[in-house]
Amino acid sequence: MKRTDWPEWSKAALAARESVLASLMTQALTRPGLLSLAAGFTDNAVVPTEIVREAVAHLPADGSALQYGSNPGRPKLREILAARLARQDGAASPALPADRFLLTSGSQQALYLAAQALCDEGDIVLVEAPTYFVVFDVFYGLGLRVLEMPMTAQGQVDPEGVAALLKRLETEGELPRVKLAYFITYYSNPTGLSMDGAVKRALGKVFAENAPRVVALEDTAYRDLYFTAPHPTPSLAALPEWEGLSFAVMGSFSKCFSPGLRLGWIAANLPELSGAMLRIKAQQDFGSGNLSQWIAEYAFASGAFEPFVASLRIHYAAKARLMSASFAENGLNKLGWSWEEPEGGLLLWLAAPKTLDTGLESAFCRAALEENVLYVPGAFAYADPEKAPKNRVRIAFGAPRGADLAEAARRFAKAASQFA
Amino acid sequence: MKRTDWPEWSKAALAARESVLASLMTQALTRPGLLSLAAGFTDNAVVPTEIVREAVAHLPADGSALQYGSNPGRPKLREILAARLARQDGAASPALPADRFLLTSGSQQALYLAAQALCDEGDIVLVEAPTYFVVFDVFYGLGLRVLEMPMTAQGQVDPEGVAALLKRLETEGELPRVKLAYFITYYSNPTGLSMDGAVKRALGKVFAENAPRVVALEDTAYRDLYFTAPHPTPSLAALPEWEGLSFAVMGSFSKCFSPGLRLGWIAANLPELSGAMLRIKAQQDFGSGNLSQWIAEYAFASGAFEPFVASLRIHYAAKARLMSASFAENGLNKLGWSWEEPEGGLLLWLAAPKTLDTGLESAFCRAALEENVLYVPGAFAYADPEKAPKNRVRIAFGAPRGADLAEAARRFAKAASQFA
Repeated sequence: MKRTDWPEWSKAALAARESVLASLMTQALTRPGLLSLAAGFTDNAVVPTEIVREAVAHLPADGSALQYGSNPGRPKLREILAARLARQDGAASPALPADRFLLTSGSQQALYLAAQALCDEGDIVLVEAPTYFVVFDVFYGLGLRVLEMPMTAQGQVDPEGVAALLKRLETEGELPRVKLAYFITYYSNPTGLSMDGAVKRALGKVFAENAPRVVALEDTAYRDLYFTAPHPTPSLAALPEWEGLSFAVMGSFSKCFSPGLRLGWIAANLPELSGAMLRIKAQQDFGSGNLSQWIAEYAFASGAFEPFVASLRIHYAAKARLMSASFAENGLNKLGWSWEEPEGGLLLWLAAPKTLDTGLESAFCRAALEENVLYVPGAFAYADPEKAPKNRVRIAFGAPRGADLAEAARRFAKAASQFA
Repeated sequence: MKRTDWPEWSKAALAARESVLASLMTQALTRPGLLSLAAGFTDNAVVPTEIVREAVAHLPADGSALQYGSNPGRPKLREILAARLARQDGAASPALPADRFLLTSGSQQALYLAAQALCDEGDIVLVEAPTYFVVFDVFYGLGLRVLEMPMTAQGQVDPEGVAALLKRLETEGELPRVKLAYFITYYSNPTGLSMDGAVKRALGKVFAENAPRVVALEDTAYRDLYFTAPHPTPSLAALPEWEGLSFAVMGSFSKCFSPGLRLGWIAANLPELSGAMLRIKAQQDFGSGNLSQWIAEYAFASGAFEPFVASLRIHYAAKARLMSASFAENGLNKLGWSWEEPEGGLLLWLAAPKTLDTGLESAFCRAALEENVLYVPGAFAYADPEKAPKNRVRIAFGAPRGADLAEAARRFAKAASQFA
């Protein structure tokens, strides 16, 4: 090919950097035998193969599930999701009715659409510290600024700190640029912590008083993966402190059913926000996969979904215990490392000794790779790299087999022992 | 809900208007018994139910097809698509290798990603006149300007006209803003026409001489749906006149297999363009549905795909003949209407008598709705509403049953007879 000239790239193309995950996966691919505790995959051993087969055996005879769907998604599935959210929230009826729900290509697209509908270049998004590191790709890709919300020592958002931040932004004339506040409220990525009910309620008052135009985006991706009992705090939809404010609740079928469907959802309390996301989605793909939606709908309607997700809870609770116990058995806590046992989710959030740098370029990371074990350096989960603690590690225990978890813990502790 | 304040909408939200299709569908829903020749759906009677069941029966035993996939898509499926494009183009080996291919959420997402990767707000996209009307939602939604390329009386792009347009844009200082030229090259939506080989080759020279940085986007969504023989002209990938230029070829599984998979693809000749689209896609959804991709891959690998698409060709060829014959039998041509028999695709492009306005607000459209038949007014398919002919009609014959096609033609001709 003899090239005469090059196209010019858009700002979006130039802003779209290689993702952290992609660079970690490159590491993984070049090391055969590497055990990865990095990617937040689920366990291939517990995908719902039989439910998918049954759903496909029961495809509607009129062929409609293999036809185009509608842009917002299958009406019955949206009804089911609205009713289920209300049930989880202990509400008598859905605060977010079915017509506010959109089915999306994973909750990733839900996040992207919310950001597109609300933010212009240079606008500000507030995030927890730490937060799900992939959201930075979304926000920076859209040309947004990301600010961390102050957090307590217990890893909770600090409502008073947020109030002070919003007041400071108002003084600086930046408050009108704040469009979105993003919260992961159940078994968070990366910390495994859930938002306290008192904090969630207090935040409603803080936003009502200081920034009522900011839209809160509540990501509930891991809510279904509790280990012993559902977290008692309802979603924003059921909290009186959030009435009159603008928010959206989003979720995913990836963690609680199958990532292979590539299906998530988002429901805004403002019909106008659901409508704006819907019209942008129409440009992007006019509707997510109808077959995938049929399978999800069938799983609920047939009664197969709830027993299935109950089995996942048992499965991942056992893996969480195994992961934590394996680290302990290999003496990681005696090397000055600490962590809390999560009550749900797929992640463990380790704290190394304060002076130990766990970054990608660190001696510790090299040692871990030498031992053929991969993790996500915790610093990636912070918006502000200056303030990010360097001694944190995100461990994803969802995907590897039990034996591999134990072996990975052994390798990890061996690497850590070189820095004790 | 007592609202304290309203969020501010982004430019993207404000630019995202209700789509033509959505407003037409609202019409359809309010009229029971309406026969729609508007939506470009395929026929529910010929969706690949058995192939989907077989694919799901053969899901990999390791659970991997229900796990997350990769961002570009399943490697084997990309290999298959690259080899198949080369075969269709009569090329000895793929000019676009597998690593340039991305699987997308329908070809709609492919179009969106290409526009995002190449265009900033205010940039210019060139389109055929007429073109697929949904692309305007995409382009205007991203804040782009759309210019029509000059066309010949035979409905072909006019290479000399395009050269003159590019020279004019250069004089006006606008040429650097032209980033993309969008072509539908096989059994086009809405005209059913395919691009002549001579035109395709001449356009390569025109762009090389006048605008080598413009990226050509070739949409081949209907290529597989030929009625008697494949169109003889290869894609841009196999034309020496396009060597050294930048282009991408895109396609879809919606028309030639099943819209329910929500699966399309795009392959750029520049690795940098594939890479830019991939990184933006990572922000949007990091990868399209893995299960859908498994089904498509299985359809190819099992040998089921080609016989299936061959059966679709026979099916839609018969529907095209029936649609055209039904209009003739009901005397539409005697009322001064004309159309060409398409050689592929799912659409018929009617010309009413020159003075007859077929727009949504027209007396003719009202008469058609009175007769309970819906169509897409042709003017929607033009970027420039001033210059758009008002007497065109797009007829989609893919979805309705045969008996309904005949009845819809009768109703349509009855409406037309009031304006003869």
